[in-house]
Amino acid sequence: MDQKKFRIAVVGATGAVGEVLLKILAQRKFPVSELVALASSRSAGSEVAFGRKQTPVRDLETYDFDGIDVAFFSAGGSVSAKHAPRAAAAGALVIDNTSHFRNDSDVPLVVAEVNPHAMRDRPRGIVSNPNCSTMQLVVALAPIHRAVGIDRINVATYQSVSGAGRSGMDELGRQTSQLLNFKKARPKRFTCQIAFNVIPHIDDFQENGYTREEMKMVWETQKILEDPAIKVNPTAVRVPVFFGHAEAVHIETRAKITAAQARELLAAAPGVVLVDERKDGGYPTPVTHASGQDPVFVGRVREDISHPLGLDLWIVADNIRKGAALNAVQLAELWSRGEA
Amino acid sequence: MDQKKFRIAVVGATGAVGEVLLKILAQRKFPVSELVALASSRSAGSEVAFGRKQTPVRDLETYDFDGIDVAFFSAGGSVSAKHAPRAAAAGALVIDNTSHFRNDSDVPLVVAEVNPHAMRDRPRGIVSNPNCSTMQLVVALAPIHRAVGIDRINVATYQSVSGAGRSGMDELGRQTSQLLNFKKARPKRFTCQIAFNVIPHIDDFQENGYTREEMKMVWETQKILEDPAIKVNPTAVRVPVFFGHAEAVHIETRAKITAAQARELLAAAPGVVLVDERKDGGYPTPVTHASGQDPVFVGRVREDISHPLGLDLWIVADNIRKGAALNAVQLAELWSRGEA
Repeated sequence: MDQKKFRIAVVGATGAVGEVLLKILAQRKFPVSELVALASSRSAGSEVAFGRKQTPVRDLETYDFDGIDVAFFSAGGSVSAKHAPRAAAAGALVIDNTSHFRNDSDVPLVVAEVNPHAMRDRPRGIVSNPNCSTMQLVVALAPIHRAVGIDRINVATYQSVSGAGRSGMDELGRQTSQLLNFKKARPKRFTCQIAFNVIPHIDDFQENGYTREEMKMVWETQKILEDPAIKVNPTAVRVPVFFGHAEAVHIETRAKITAAQARELLAAAPGVVLVDERKDGGYPTPVTHASGQDPVFVGRVREDISHPLGLDLWIVADNIRKGAALNAVQLAELWSRGEA
Repeated sequence: MDQKKFRIAVVGATGAVGEVLLKILAQRKFPVSELVALASSRSAGSEVAFGRKQTPVRDLETYDFDGIDVAFFSAGGSVSAKHAPRAAAAGALVIDNTSHFRNDSDVPLVVAEVNPHAMRDRPRGIVSNPNCSTMQLVVALAPIHRAVGIDRINVATYQSVSGAGRSGMDELGRQTSQLLNFKKARPKRFTCQIAFNVIPHIDDFQENGYTREEMKMVWETQKILEDPAIKVNPTAVRVPVFFGHAEAVHIETRAKITAAQARELLAAAPGVVLVDERKDGGYPTPVTHASGQDPVFVGRVREDISHPLGLDLWIVADNIRKGAALNAVQLAELWSRGEA
């Protein structure tokens, strides 16, 4: 029997996430009959790699999505706002990587390993992919939440510059080289020097003093784990790392779970790799484990000495792969197999 | 009236902390009649700068501390273990920067702005300087603890490589340059690559799954704030920054304090500079604020949406200055003025 193949559109094909998305579609042999790479008119006319072939980049503004089965969007919230409904109206399943629709009650927010069932109900034809920081957090915490319930999450993030796109990576590279050559490193993409520095500010400040990046972790965690009672207290920090986000996570559960029990759950959890030995290198880091890899890596699992129901974890993943492109492709796979 | 002057010994004079200690003694015009720079026999014979003069480095092993008023130690725990009691027995006030004596009940652990009174009672003639991560934490939290009491502290650190001494700084510089030149960056000082990476491991692992660096923050915070009931839950992480430690701090107080009240307390607190505007750059970072500076900088003050008595802060300081050398000199100043 011939496998059914699909017509795929990738909006933002020249961006950091778009590039990896094309790579993952090819690597995972997603059944593609036609691949349409789309970007703003500025990038249209260039080419991107898909498998062994170069594909021309077409202008999103004038493209009609006619006959497209799945349209991936990762070109920023305003682009999704304008063009995703158009793609959905043309009949495509839209998988949106931006934050634009994430809080809409009629748009499911789905992590393949956590709440795939939520994808079935998509009245607008749009499915949202969570923020990268939320993604790795819920993949690791879902098995614990299912077992004993999570009451509260204190999380501090160590987020790589690729989360800010290509311009973020360029800025870290440029500033680092300038500083090593005794030149001034002027900030452009970030609010202050990112090379050899850390910046506690990602996305806009909100009324309550949290940033929007932090509040995304609150709203999205509650929505994906389908539990608005989960309390989340994040501090989101940019660090001079190219690929891979890390998170120091301190949770309080509703019933006691030992570190050994948590480790057992995590070792068996889909999409999770436990790296937890109490010795040199016995924990995941962005460079040694996560960069370019699919799983969410968890280490430093220990019972919190400051709380009877506390548990600490260190969670690391490639923010561009599992944090964005990989999950988007996994959602398309679920749909293509009729599982969502 | 002539100011009384003192004979000062600096053990570890060629190290990262020793160098800054000599600089701060000169900058703050500490009344020095004689400065004896000491180090291991390997470094003896070299010279270090003190004010405008070069001072020969003498061999610690054969030095007798005769007539020395104050001896600063920052050459590692084993050096302090062996030589600090000898210096104290010779009549010197020992101010020890290592962790060796910090938990001894007959050795006070003192932060100049927080518990200077504790310095008066020093039966062994030794006073300990806290760990750099604890130092900046308690300077910022002491005013809040005094006002409403602190019940629990969740803290994730972003610690610069200078905390690992000169070899840590060398490794970050060397690896960064190797990677920018497409060479391999092999780890030596740290357990894995530190350039463009973060490592959740500082000092040895303990039985309970925390590292020794993390447990130092527990023990030392309780000792300095003179409150063994304070619960502390730290995750200590090394980041690719040269100077300045940052901390994402989530506290739970015993009585309610608003962010506005906390900000008011912090703005008036000795040794603290509040940098807290909800706009681009309106928060401290290691590079923009702390590096080479004396104060502890605090920003991102906000009420914790996940806890009725929760408060979040972002605390940054130069780990070599306030985190080590500066506090040591401040303790000597208190003593020299007869205040401790």
